[in-house]
Amino acid sequence: MNAVLPERAAALLDEVRQRRPRVHCLMNGVVPKFVADGLSALGAIPSMTSSPEEVGHFVAKADALLVNLGTLDARRREAIGIAVGVAAERGRPWALDPAHCDYSPPRAAFAQELLARGPAVLRANAAEYDLLSVPAGVVAVRTGKQDRIAQNGAAFSVTNGHPLAAMVTGTGCLSGAVIAVFLAIEADPFIAASAAMVVFGIAAEMAGETATGPGSFEPALLDALANLGGAHILQFAKADHEQD
Amino acid sequence: MNAVLPERAAALLDEVRQRRPRVHCLMNGVVPKFVADGLSALGAIPSMTSSPEEVGHFVAKADALLVNLGTLDARRREAIGIAVGVAAERGRPWALDPAHCDYSPPRAAFAQELLARGPAVLRANAAEYDLLSVPAGVVAVRTGKQDRIAQNGAAFSVTNGHPLAAMVTGTGCLSGAVIAVFLAIEADPFIAASAAMVVFGIAAEMAGETATGPGSFEPALLDALANLGGAHILQFAKADHEQD
Amino acid sequence: MNAVLPERAAALLDEVRQRRPRVHCLMNGVVPKFVADGLSALGAIPSMTSSPEEVGHFVAKADALLVNLGTLDARRREAIGIAVGVAAERGRPWALDPAHCDYSPPRAAFAQELLARGPAVLRANAAEYDLLSVPAGVVAVRTGKQDRIAQNGAAFSVTNGHPLAAMVTGTGCLSGAVIAVFLAIEADPFIAASAAMVVFGIAAEMAGETATGPGSFEPALLDALANLGGAHILQFAKADHEQD
Repeated sequence: MNAVLPERAAALLDEVRQRRPRVHCLMNGVVPKFVADGLSALGAIPSMTSSPEEVGHFVAKADALLVNLGTLDARRREAIGIAVGVAAERGRPWALDPAHCDYSPPRAAFAQELLARGPAVLRANAAEYDLLSVPAGVVAVRTGKQDRIAQNGAAFSVTNGHPLAAMVTGTGCLSGAVIAVFLAIEADPFIAASAAMVVFGIAAEMAGETATGPGSFEPALLDALANLGGAHILQFAKADHEQD
Repeated sequence: MNAVLPERAAALLDEVRQRRPRVHCLMNGVVPKFVADGLSALGAIPSMTSSPEEVGHFVAKADALLVNLGTLDARRREAIGIAVGVAAERGRPWALDPAHCDYSPPRAAFAQELLARGPAVLRANAAEYDLLSVPAGVVAVRTGKQDRIAQNGAAFSVTNGHPLAAMVTGTGCLSGAVIAVFLAIEADPFIAASAAMVVFGIAAEMAGETATGPGSFEPALLDALANLGGAHILQFAKADHEQD
Repeated sequence: MNAVLPERAAALLDEVRQRRPRVHCLMNGVVPKFVADGLSALGAIPSMTSSPEEVGHFVAKADALLVNLGTLDARRREAIGIAVGVAAERGRPWALDPAHCDYSPPRAAFAQELLARGPAVLRANAAEYDLLSVPAGVVAVRTGKQDRIAQNGAAFSVTNGHPLAAMVTGTGCLSGAVIAVFLAIEADPFIAASAAMVVFGIAAEMAGETATGPGSFEPALLDALANLGGAHILQFAKADHEQD
């Protein structure tokens, strides 16, 4: 698939811009605007409420869902439970980001519970990933210098990206939301997640070319997500089947 | 008034910078910093708490109030009720922004209740606007490619603005807060809202001249709100009485 | 010490980048991303949750703590109580920022209670500072055009800084967090706070050289916090023992 993925990713990106999928994000309280801006830049339509009273209405209107566990509390847990239930009822795909679950045992336990409820994709960094047991069938995305997308024994590695991304709070959270965007338009979550990581990594590289530090990297990343086209993907994608 | 509005708007902007009105914002959880930064850039003094325990103290110190219904929950509802009560007691004008009420029927119902409590101005996009019944006397601002400011049969249209604003989360919320700034210094809410939309639209145009995407548009918009002067308004305002 | 402080500050900054201290911030709901980005740019590792259920786990992993009272409510109070308790148990230093306590009498009373629980440093602007009674031993940092760092009769003044910082929401909050970073690596809180104010002030000056308004100042400040080196401190520090 490595020869094919860039073409698929380029075609999916075009489709995002044409169909403008709605993605509801149960986002932490730290980076909601950054994540919403990133999705808008890419061409999707984000919504962000985490209140239990309203989240069901928002998920019912969405094409895909992201569940991020940052700044978790009792009300967010309740809202997440409702949101995942509505997504299941309506057959909407969702991605799970167990942000910082390595800091908090109750959060790690909640992430494990949610994995049993059938997310299409798990996105986690290495420290988070190592704590969790991923059920068969769930696409597991481990992000880092090299991103690894794995499902049922097949795996892809993506080496696009830029070191400044690690200095900007919320780039990992945004990459999870970008996965949800691609889930909204691509039925195969392995393809969707792989395409998302390629697109996000190339946008980071484009941003890194003009940024003079983490502060200027952030607006440059949003600009790159908006300005990135299929031609950039075909030229710059670095994705390979992993050799085990 | 179309010949007069730019002059009024320019004079009001000068007054904002001299008097530095305090504006308390019951803002959603997504864009509080962006809205606060926008008000500071313009010359106002923002405050942002939404806790029921404290909001009354903050509103008592404010010259005007903005009520934004984004990320609504039970505590925000309680805080909004208190804030609107204090504003009424003290004769402080307030603006209502029923953000995303088209996504959530309970939010739309709450917006309708609040309209009965006497905001000076309602600001909404077309989808939100169409759900609500605006009481006589309330200035209704419907934002979009063309902004329409209406009250008791009179209407103004403002065509200043830039398409990148729609790709940045919170520009609509910020425009509502800018209306509250002008309410703090101008007793006629129709003039205040019209001047606010002209100022905000011109700032967006200035930002659009240097921005290379939605990421760079945001800091450029804040710079423009700070650097915009009366001369820009006189030169660039595009506001007309609507021909019905 | 004025001849010595720049050298100490430069050495401490190097140590921040080598040791990468973890700093947990009980931050208000307005500027969490900006503060986290500022700490990451400087070289520290921030975490930001304010939920009572989890904050103890996060503080247990942290090298220092910041308690900011912005957007205070019952749950934040509870979380703050837990966090300060864990910090005391583990001997972790913490800084208190009574943000906007001049707007709200209950918040000022809570700040006074917290001062009795032994923060290493209080950071406040003049309006906040004047309401509080600082216990002996607590380092008191009063920020403004001139920052004053005082403890037990000794005092330092720092005049580094830039006027645009006052137009960006959260720069004061970020300066408090930078103090917590230096507390994590320097046992003497008077030195730590003085070094932090010098570093932050010089970063603001660097940002002011390229910014064209408050919008562009913010990413420039984050870039400066990342790019600032010991040589800048030695060249630009303006810190003096205060003459009483």
